[in-house]
Amino acid sequence: MNDAWLLSELASAVGGRVDGDPDRRVRGVATLEDAGPDDLSFLTNPRYRPALASSRAGAILVGPAVRIEGRDLLVAPDPYLALAEILDRMHPQPRPAPGVSPDARIASGAMLGHDVAIGPFAVVASGARLGDRTVVGAGAVIGEGSAIGEDTVLRPRVVLYPGTRVGARCLIHAGVVLGGDGFGYATSAGTHRKVPQLGCVVVEDDVEIGANSTVDRGTLGETRIGHGTKIDNLVMVAHGVVIGPYGLLAAQAGVAGSTRIGSHVTIAGQSGAAGHLTIGDRVVIAAKTAVLSDVPDRSFVAGIPAVDHRTWKRSLALVKMLPELRSRLRALEERLAAIEARDKGSA
Amino acid sequence: MNDAWLLSELASAVGGRVDGDPDRRVRGVATLEDAGPDDLSFLTNPRYRPALASSRAGAILVGPAVRIEGRDLLVAPDPYLALAEILDRMHPQPRPAPGVSPDARIASGAMLGHDVAIGPFAVVASGARLGDRTVVGAGAVIGEGSAIGEDTVLRPRVVLYPGTRVGARCLIHAGVVLGGDGFGYATSAGTHRKVPQLGCVVVEDDVEIGANSTVDRGTLGETRIGHGTKIDNLVMVAHGVVIGPYGLLAAQAGVAGSTRIGSHVTIAGQSGAAGHLTIGDRVVIAAKTAVLSDVPDRSFVAGIPAVDHRTWKRSLALVKMLPELRSRLRALEERLAAIEARDKGSA
Amino acid sequence: MNDAWLLSELASAVGGRVDGDPDRRVRGVATLEDAGPDDLSFLTNPRYRPALASSRAGAILVGPAVRIEGRDLLVAPDPYLALAEILDRMHPQPRPAPGVSPDARIASGAMLGHDVAIGPFAVVASGARLGDRTVVGAGAVIGEGSAIGEDTVLRPRVVLYPGTRVGARCLIHAGVVLGGDGFGYATSAGTHRKVPQLGCVVVEDDVEIGANSTVDRGTLGETRIGHGTKIDNLVMVAHGVVIGPYGLLAAQAGVAGSTRIGSHVTIAGQSGAAGHLTIGDRVVIAAKTAVLSDVPDRSFVAGIPAVDHRTWKRSLALVKMLPELRSRLRALEERLAAIEARDKGSA
Repeated sequence: MNDAWLLSELASAVGGRVDGDPDRRVRGVATLEDAGPDDLSFLTNPRYRPALASSRAGAILVGPAVRIEGRDLLVAPDPYLALAEILDRMHPQPRPAPGVSPDARIASGAMLGHDVAIGPFAVVASGARLGDRTVVGAGAVIGEGSAIGEDTVLRPRVVLYPGTRVGARCLIHAGVVLGGDGFGYATSAGTHRKVPQLGCVVVEDDVEIGANSTVDRGTLGETRIGHGTKIDNLVMVAHGVVIGPYGLLAAQAGVAGSTRIGSHVTIAGQSGAAGHLTIGDRVVIAAKTAVLSDVPDRSFVAGIPAVDHRTWKRSLALVKMLPELRSRLRALEERLAAIEARDKGSA
Repeated sequence: MNDAWLLSELASAVGGRVDGDPDRRVRGVATLEDAGPDDLSFLTNPRYRPALASSRAGAILVGPAVRIEGRDLLVAPDPYLALAEILDRMHPQPRPAPGVSPDARIASGAMLGHDVAIGPFAVVASGARLGDRTVVGAGAVIGEGSAIGEDTVLRPRVVLYPGTRVGARCLIHAGVVLGGDGFGYATSAGTHRKVPQLGCVVVEDDVEIGANSTVDRGTLGETRIGHGTKIDNLVMVAHGVVIGPYGLLAAQAGVAGSTRIGSHVTIAGQSGAAGHLTIGDRVVIAAKTAVLSDVPDRSFVAGIPAVDHRTWKRSLALVKMLPELRSRLRALEERLAAIEARDKGSA
Repeated sequence: MNDAWLLSELASAVGGRVDGDPDRRVRGVATLEDAGPDDLSFLTNPRYRPALASSRAGAILVGPAVRIEGRDLLVAPDPYLALAEILDRMHPQPRPAPGVSPDARIASGAMLGHDVAIGPFAVVASGARLGDRTVVGAGAVIGEGSAIGEDTVLRPRVVLYPGTRVGARCLIHAGVVLGGDGFGYATSAGTHRKVPQLGCVVVEDDVEIGANSTVDRGTLGETRIGHGTKIDNLVMVAHGVVIGPYGLLAAQAGVAGSTRIGSHVTIAGQSGAAGHLTIGDRVVIAAKTAVLSDVPDRSFVAGIPAVDHRTWKRSLALVKMLPELRSRLRALEERLAAIEARDKGSA
């Protein structure tokens, strides 16, 4: 069993190089604060540079531009990516042993792939299909006709409403609800009549969804989470929303019904987008933003309502200047009054 | 089995009329984008009018004011309401067959109405009463002494703390928690002592609550969700709140303790109201608003803190004008300085 | 059984005194609105003073500065704290009877303390340790190697990912997820690669966490919730966050990764803090605030982005004055133009 790693070996694994002793051995990875002499630590955020001096780490993973005297360095082109690779290598995540708990209830019409693992008190309804090596956590509920792709992992207590489709290699965390009814009512004479929600949720491959997040089914069509998109905890994706590939939605973000979001879009924490909007590719939405109109490709927006990030910053600066502007206005009034008084006197 | 519908038949069902061929048959409903020649589509939001030209839909459901050449139209007084009615007619929602799963645990003191359906791994505690035809999803937990009205549906994994009362014809989505403790502490010398939360949650008839939302019990009295109110996902209703009939609370909204909300109030997404407030009837609260003081009937408020919606818009416009105001101020200063300099020279 | 309480007896229990009849008996506690002649009511928030006149309460719990004619008063140094003490005394919370449900699945390697109570369909994995008198609600899932301290109560459907540690006397509400993966990805060529999340969550003693809240595990180290901290519903605490003792986090608040929060910090509802920040001791963060930079001890901040609370209020006031400032600017321009015109005429 490999419990110590040569720096040179890790460097070649991540396409990097060693600056110092290539035969230095490390046994684990830890933060600068927690690392001991047997640990590799890392400096991927310059904010933590001050912690370097007192760190007891045996070696430091850094980016190409970083110089540190008297330390054995593992220099990687992208040190945060290298960190992910090294942690994967040192800590391969165990999969639960295949097998269906005798306490799970699998409907006779469900189709299970090879080597699935299903925990106790999970429920798999009729017509559901589970790909090879899927993992269904304790107490999860897989509704009728749902489909789950290969190697996808559902943590405990995930609920898939009927007809939900989840792709391959997804990771769905505890408490997530996929396929609940969209929030659609026809209001007539003050009474809200439910519009039947007949569509579904489609989660493409390689998606991760954080704990207790919810994705509602489309009214008629799909709500779709694109390939490689990552969603944090307590996020709300409403009915009929389409999120393109490689999105990032941070915690407590929300997207209202029928909004279409392009590829590689980042939505920071506690931000929201109104319904029926089009948000382009590679857009970045700052934290706590309210997007109330369409956003073109490659924009960086902030504010309530969202505007270009620089406009938002300028507005903030001008609001800060308001006391000064008011003083200058008052001074002008006094100077002008003095001129007027004198003119009047001389008239 | 009815799998095709005459336009004339649907028109009479929704109190509308056909503009075009009344004998046109449709087999389903789809969005303008997805509809084929056998489908009825709809134009309920003018934003989607451009999609009409290329739609392959066989017929279009529209409101009275809409004119479209060369299409068979179903003209309804309220097309969105008609859409709800047509979908209900075409897709009657199946109820699960009555029966109690052998894997559910029903306490001996629980009272079950006729034709209830209880899923596997559900728990119904002593003293709980379930009305006729109630549905309790897999893994739901119904606490002691709770009561659920007729025809109410609890999706999987709903939790009702002891003493929670839910009315008739409600729909409670997966992961909802009703009756958790209110967030009440008496802080003394820096330590937070829990104030016992002894009240309950009352959900009146015809209420829908979205996935993973939470409603806390009152400290002593009730937290009450009024008749016909619809609540979206991930909404928080705190202890002692009273929400009147026919409210609409969109996703991730939150209402703090003891606030009273009138009837027909709309709270848009990610908005919040502070505690101990009174919010009148027919109030509309825009998205991302923070209500920090009482709101009179029929107000439309926005902003942090909330103000009248027009005031909020005017403030936004004025903040946008700040660069211009600053330029004008600077120009005034220069002109005044010029006058002062000349006056001085001429003195 | 004690079902009536002398005012004098309650007064001595809370270190207070009776102003009126010490032999007055009360049988319960109710709000001013709901109380009858046998009830003690309370005035802990001056906002409710108008309800006093019409209250039918037999006696009123008040603070030292409050005078009310013609009422029997229980005067306590801290009436809200006294309310908590009196409610605890009148309504001691029953614990479920000890015992493990035959429908719970306890792994052979789990260690259970004395007098634990475990509900149906709960799952306790191998290596988990449950302290004496812990309560595990129906459907809760305790992951491998987790540890729960004495007298801690987990409500139904709580999920502890493997390796989570919860202290003594904690109360974790339904639907809470502790130990989910942090939201960490290394983005390379537009693809998000998961950074393995190998740390854990540590919840210290006397912590309460509200329904459906989530706390993610650290990437390498801990996410830590300090002693006596109280967390409301639908709150998100991200990976590597440290919250000091005696914090209060209201509903729908969120704290991003690696931020460190001092002791006795209050975060009001729907507020958020960005990642990698330091927030000092005894800080108060107003509702709907976005903290984007470090906050020193004892600050009271508000706004997006957060600034000192007084600065925020001043900015709001100045923005409200903008129409007036604009009018004054316009008046100045006219007066100056008049002077310039006259000067020109006289030149």
